Amino acid sequence: MKTATLYGIIIRDITPLIGDADGYEALIEQMAETLRDADVDMVVGPEARGFIFGAPLAYALHAGFVPARKPGKLPYETIGYTYGLEYGTDELQIHADAIRPGQRVAIVDDLLATGGTALACAKLVEKAGGVVVGFSFAIELCDLHGRETLAGYPVHTILQY
Amino acid sequence: MKTATLYGIIIRDITPLIGDADGYEALIEQMAETLRDADVDMVVGPEARGFIFGAPLAYALHAGFVPARKPGKLPYETIGYTYGLEYGTDELQIHADAIRPGQRVAIVDDLLATGGTALACAKLVEKAGGVVVGFSFAIELCDLHGRETLAGYPVHTILQY
Repeated sequence: MKTATLYGIIIRDITPLIGDADGYEALIEQMAETLRDADVDMVVGPEARGFIFGAPLAYALHAGFVPARKPGKLPYETIGYTYGLEYGTDELQIHADAIRPGQRVAIVDDLLATGGTALACAKLVEKAGGVVVGFSFAIELCDLHGRETLAGYPVHTILQY
Repeated sequence: MKTATLYGIIIRDITPLIGDADGYEALIEQMAETLRDADVDMVVGPEARGFIFGAPLAYALHAGFVPARKPGKLPYETIGYTYGLEYGTDELQIHADAIRPGQRVAIVDDLLATGGTALACAKLVEKAGGVVVGFSFAIELCDLHGRETLAGYPVHTILQY
């Protein structure tokens, strides 16, 4: 992993890790292991880096994959959730029929920072009637207290900083 | 799969397919099978739907994954390629060090339409010194002649329309 500073924000760059076949495989397998006993029906990953971890996790767990996207990206009827960012608000959407009531859903992303995006995914899943059985992140930035935002849910992270 | 028409463009929606655990697994395994003998070191997937197929294919093939992204999304030194669309131009970038000279690279996306995005990925890979050993797409829209754009490369598609 490399770090850089851009506009005063420290960037932890995942691309060297996912570009290494052994590193990527080990990371996906460790993330899948954290969810193995949760009986996951569907994995939700937020656009776009969440797809890089969520899609292979869905495959590894034999689950379906649901992309959570910015407005205007999904072609059918959607449900949305608007959430606050450090610098404004954002909205994530899923297809209204993406998750059936009672399905067991894991939420997967590259990074747990403040937890705002992840919580928005959980709210979307619950709006659709799904049950959030856990979160899995490759990286946790512990100083940003994302676990507090996600209090009450099982949260799994592989690399902590 | 569902279809819809948006601004006169027919949309083939992949979300019902990837949301079905059996369908998603079968599709990823069939796509991986088309590349099994190509000895793939790295999979390149263009933002963002290319991540949904490229990332699990990298995992299934024990390869690294390289996201090809729109300008401004990657934090380090990048190489870019600008290409024509029906409605203007667009640019894709990868990190300058993402692919080492001689590495065998597969390019993966959800859909082969005109082939412009896929060809841009190939040009990026070759600019980095990589060898494009094949393309794999979940869906091919045959009327748009993407295979002609990608002439000279092995092109694999699973569902043709």
